[in-house]
Amino acid sequence: MIDMTFQTPKGTRDFLPDEAAKRRKYFELVRKVLQNYGYGEIITPSFETLELLEAKGSLGEEAVKDVFRIWDKGKDKLGYGLIFDPTTPIARIVAADQSLPKPLRWYYIRPMWRYEETKAGRYREFWQAGAELIGSSDPAADAEILALTADALKAMGIKEFTFRVSSRKIAEALAELAGIPADKRAAAFRAVDKLEKFGETEVKSEMEQAGIPGKAIQKFLKYAEMDGKSIEKELKGSADFKELTAIIECAKKMGVANTVIDVSIMRGIDYYTGFIFETVVKGSENLGSIASGGRYDSLIEKYGGKPTPATGVGIGIDRMMTLVTDDVSAAPRVFVANVKEETKAEAIAIAQDLRRKGISAEFDVLGRNLKKQFEYVNSRGIAFCIVIGPEEMKKRTAKLRDMKTGDEKDVALDKIAKELL
Amino acid sequence: MIDMTFQTPKGTRDFLPDEAAKRRKYFELVRKVLQNYGYGEIITPSFETLELLEAKGSLGEEAVKDVFRIWDKGKDKLGYGLIFDPTTPIARIVAADQSLPKPLRWYYIRPMWRYEETKAGRYREFWQAGAELIGSSDPAADAEILALTADALKAMGIKEFTFRVSSRKIAEALAELAGIPADKRAAAFRAVDKLEKFGETEVKSEMEQAGIPGKAIQKFLKYAEMDGKSIEKELKGSADFKELTAIIECAKKMGVANTVIDVSIMRGIDYYTGFIFETVVKGSENLGSIASGGRYDSLIEKYGGKPTPATGVGIGIDRMMTLVTDDVSAAPRVFVANVKEETKAEAIAIAQDLRRKGISAEFDVLGRNLKKQFEYVNSRGIAFCIVIGPEEMKKRTAKLRDMKTGDEKDVALDKIAKELL
Repeated sequence: MIDMTFQTPKGTRDFLPDEAAKRRKYFELVRKVLQNYGYGEIITPSFETLELLEAKGSLGEEAVKDVFRIWDKGKDKLGYGLIFDPTTPIARIVAADQSLPKPLRWYYIRPMWRYEETKAGRYREFWQAGAELIGSSDPAADAEILALTADALKAMGIKEFTFRVSSRKIAEALAELAGIPADKRAAAFRAVDKLEKFGETEVKSEMEQAGIPGKAIQKFLKYAEMDGKSIEKELKGSADFKELTAIIECAKKMGVANTVIDVSIMRGIDYYTGFIFETVVKGSENLGSIASGGRYDSLIEKYGGKPTPATGVGIGIDRMMTLVTDDVSAAPRVFVANVKEETKAEAIAIAQDLRRKGISAEFDVLGRNLKKQFEYVNSRGIAFCIVIGPEEMKKRTAKLRDMKTGDEKDVALDKIAKELL
Repeated sequence: MIDMTFQTPKGTRDFLPDEAAKRRKYFELVRKVLQNYGYGEIITPSFETLELLEAKGSLGEEAVKDVFRIWDKGKDKLGYGLIFDPTTPIARIVAADQSLPKPLRWYYIRPMWRYEETKAGRYREFWQAGAELIGSSDPAADAEILALTADALKAMGIKEFTFRVSSRKIAEALAELAGIPADKRAAAFRAVDKLEKFGETEVKSEMEQAGIPGKAIQKFLKYAEMDGKSIEKELKGSADFKELTAIIECAKKMGVANTVIDVSIMRGIDYYTGFIFETVVKGSENLGSIASGGRYDSLIEKYGGKPTPATGVGIGIDRMMTLVTDDVSAAPRVFVANVKEETKAEAIAIAQDLRRKGISAEFDVLGRNLKKQFEYVNSRGIAFCIVIGPEEMKKRTAKLRDMKTGDEKDVALDKIAKELL
């Protein structure tokens, strides 16, 4: 037999109720943390104009390749793209409306799209939570981003993790010291960003192809291996280094002590201008960074706005979900079974009454006998079952059965809701 | 000066925090109702293959025109489409996995996309909530869909509305009586679906263009004006009519009495096979239907699955949101102001403490003086302000100010959370 069924597009997934309920549970835990930090949700369209996504100094040429492109009927060409990262539309809004009172604290929890090769744990449709703090260049702003990220991870039950922090300014200074020409630095950062993923040979070859001198490559990669103390010496206590230290110190005061300077982190997107960070979970380092971000002080200006400092984080929900192992059930609390067809109307009435009292309830819509109804209740993992037969109907009672213990008792119809609340 | 800023794509919108919080509030009210009815959330991709969306007997040729098309790099052509309605992917899942235990009660609250002319209240990116009950042909299943729709509307504060109910089978029977050839009926239904929107002249002309004889058009449009009683007479108590009556009766038992038979409603999508309905709100009839749906008993089979009866509803969130008028604020509960730079660290520490105790709090990241901080607090509509100055710091207290009443009192630092809970 030929299978005539259809699949989801490559790299996308369906989440059925139990899995969706689990994701929803964690979305809400993260939402609560972000709202506690004073962040308000921002909902932007799923696609933007290619003019925006391709603007210079925005995503950068490499990221732009991975945008899903949509046909613009009016212009008769590919004119829109599914959003690749949420910072782009947020910067668009702030650029276009200068009257928004600063600072802005905005968050989002939403799907995004990246047209890349699919592999384990990487999806073309992926979910991200995140926060942006716009209008402040205070190190306390960057520290707050680290603090809320830490609290969001903890809320999801992830306890041991490290923030690898660095700065694009430090990377620039080191690139200069190494002798990488100014116009090749963006390419160098994009290449080094892949160090952990692809290894030194590939990164070197990518930098060579970008036309960076071999000596400069070697020197830059040597810096990438150094720890904070050595970098500090190389930079002779520069202002850029002090800025990074100030963020780390402020984060400590906010209860975030798990930061380590690592100048090998680069972030693959062009718009970062200062502080950058990644997050690795102890024991799950192979997952890569599960929360990354940094400062993008020139993006809003590039989109036509006033110069506006900004910092933020994106948290990879899909990677996070691989770390949470609890089971969440989307089953209702109770199933109202009817013994015979003649008690069905009563079963429906009881279910309706419970639903309206805030107790999730189902009744049978398949004309099944009682045995089959019980089988269904068990297969769904529904905790309670109410059984209503002709005798119970006469007495205005019903049997309430705890499916776990098997305990059964007669309850007056008007007392059922109270038993289940 | 040239405006260099960017706009959202036509027909799409940004929701800033207060508006997003309001939408989120209503999403959650609707979610609670759907979950009370035993429905579990289903999250499907934002786009599907064009093979699925264009499958025969699915959306239908008219709806397919309005699909946003996405470039498939692998096939080097437009190969995907943003989803137009959620029933399509849900039917795909059920068709492909026959092991799912029936009945399935699934819901969704999500954005969807329709590439049509934009006008007031119609968006190209729009939000829809909805529920699908799959596996049952019981009139109680259709009645349950009406009941949960009614409860969802009531939860959103919409009290007076009418369900206009009909059936594709009745429409088929009437089309046959009118003399519309079998292969022209889908076109006839799509045309009559626009009766309220465009008027009789336009609908007539569309039917003529579809090649339907003038006499048949006239007769069919006459039926469309008849009330339930007259239709019952025309159909001489047919089984189709009895089925519709059974749904209405069962809905009544579930507390839904506001149904009226109206055979002029058609629904513009091809896959409906039986019961169909629309919902009009009293005083807002001009909005059109804010919740519509019906039975699609052959869609899952068309997608390669076993014959599976199914019924459902889609609720138009955007139209609903035009009917709710309350203001929702996304502002945090408290702002922790620092009198001078030297008390900033203390202000940050207090804010952090409150955040971790579940009280939403902000502190200043712009180095503003106290007056400017107060101005910001007022402009955001934040309810409380904590002021921490050098004197308070010594005494380990802070001033707690109710921004509405102007009342101020000294509170010990370790008692602040309790005051605000």
